[in-house]
Amino acid sequence: MTAILTLSSKNYSSWSMRGWLLCKLAGLEVEEQMVPVDADTRAELLLLSPSVRVPRLTDGEVSVWDTLAIGGYLNERFPDAGMYPADLAMRAHCRAISGEIHSGFYNLRSALPMNLRVRHESFKVFSGAKPDIERIIEIWEECLTRYGGPFLFGATPTVADAMFAPVATRFVTYNVALPALAAQYRDTVLAWEPVQEWIAAALAEPDEMIELEVEF
Amino acid sequence: MTAILTLSSKNYSSWSMRGWLLCKLAGLEVEEQMVPVDADTRAELLLLSPSVRVPRLTDGEVSVWDTLAIGGYLNERFPDAGMYPADLAMRAHCRAISGEIHSGFYNLRSALPMNLRVRHESFKVFSGAKPDIERIIEIWEECLTRYGGPFLFGATPTVADAMFAPVATRFVTYNVALPALAAQYRDTVLAWEPVQEWIAAALAEPDEMIELEVEF
Repeated sequence: MTAILTLSSKNYSSWSMRGWLLCKLAGLEVEEQMVPVDADTRAELLLLSPSVRVPRLTDGEVSVWDTLAIGGYLNERFPDAGMYPADLAMRAHCRAISGEIHSGFYNLRSALPMNLRVRHESFKVFSGAKPDIERIIEIWEECLTRYGGPFLFGATPTVADAMFAPVATRFVTYNVALPALAAQYRDTVLAWEPVQEWIAAALAEPDEMIELEVEF
Repeated sequence: MTAILTLSSKNYSSWSMRGWLLCKLAGLEVEEQMVPVDADTRAELLLLSPSVRVPRLTDGEVSVWDTLAIGGYLNERFPDAGMYPADLAMRAHCRAISGEIHSGFYNLRSALPMNLRVRHESFKVFSGAKPDIERIIEIWEECLTRYGGPFLFGATPTVADAMFAPVATRFVTYNVALPALAAQYRDTVLAWEPVQEWIAAALAEPDEMIELEVEF
């Protein structure tokens, strides 16, 4: 029985994107089930409340929602997929920064929501979001310097790259200037094949999935 | 070498409480290192930004911050501690609701910050926080009904109980009315020995740890 991954908008839902990338990392083939965008999912699409229960993975008797929970479940089911680094300390580090992006960065989420279809060349970043951006750059630079890149924990992508991928798209959407190393990582993530595939699907998403007004 | 757990205020920091309870669940003895409360940790204490890197567990060469990451690390290091349920589907469920409380419930966090020293008998709950409270009751009732209690996943506490413990204290602090089953669970968590120990330490916390003005 094929596993089912319930998603909302591919253009707006960064949580859906993360859950989908985690399935790709695990090598799990899923049937995608899109839920229509309505008032209830609006907050989630604006990334203010990931507690709306999308994405959700249904795999046999298992029903699991929340991106990190999906990652934890898939890592158990596919222990050889290398979703987390093999080294104990690196694995803990990977968990820590994945946890940070999961629970924090509220200002970044609300001020720079994911929107893969647009480009804001001269977007004024709300001052409250600047410390969030600085912290993300710090996290990226620390990993890339310590583990040698091109992904955060070395040669191959891990859960952390899936968690930060939507942030890389925002830095493009809102034309956020980055130092060289962070810019290089942003481009690495955006060139990662599953990310390319997701973005292409977002650009082709039918209009009925995108009913909400995004306010800036 | 004893592991070190870096914490901020025991009275105000729900994230510190969670990290500490997770160490108790794992059976890991830690040396507590308290960091003073200053402007940088203020947001964290008000639970608005868990991205401040407290709590942090330093265990040999491993340095891990973020509560869920600490839980994931400890579960790897102490696989026999039963931090997650033994059953696959229950474990996924446990991860899912732990993920929800980790990343969501922003309005509850901001409107009803943890404060173990006070009681508000007639606190007016901000309408924005009500759906958060309703969702928490729903999560609790679903687990208790399905798995039989007294803890969320049965007879013994898991990561999910550590994650929801500070919420139980808030329901007391702000005198939030709960249906019978949820009220019973609240009392179970509050009577859990490590929670009792934490609360006692919070009440005895020196004044210099508590410099901030909590605004309601």
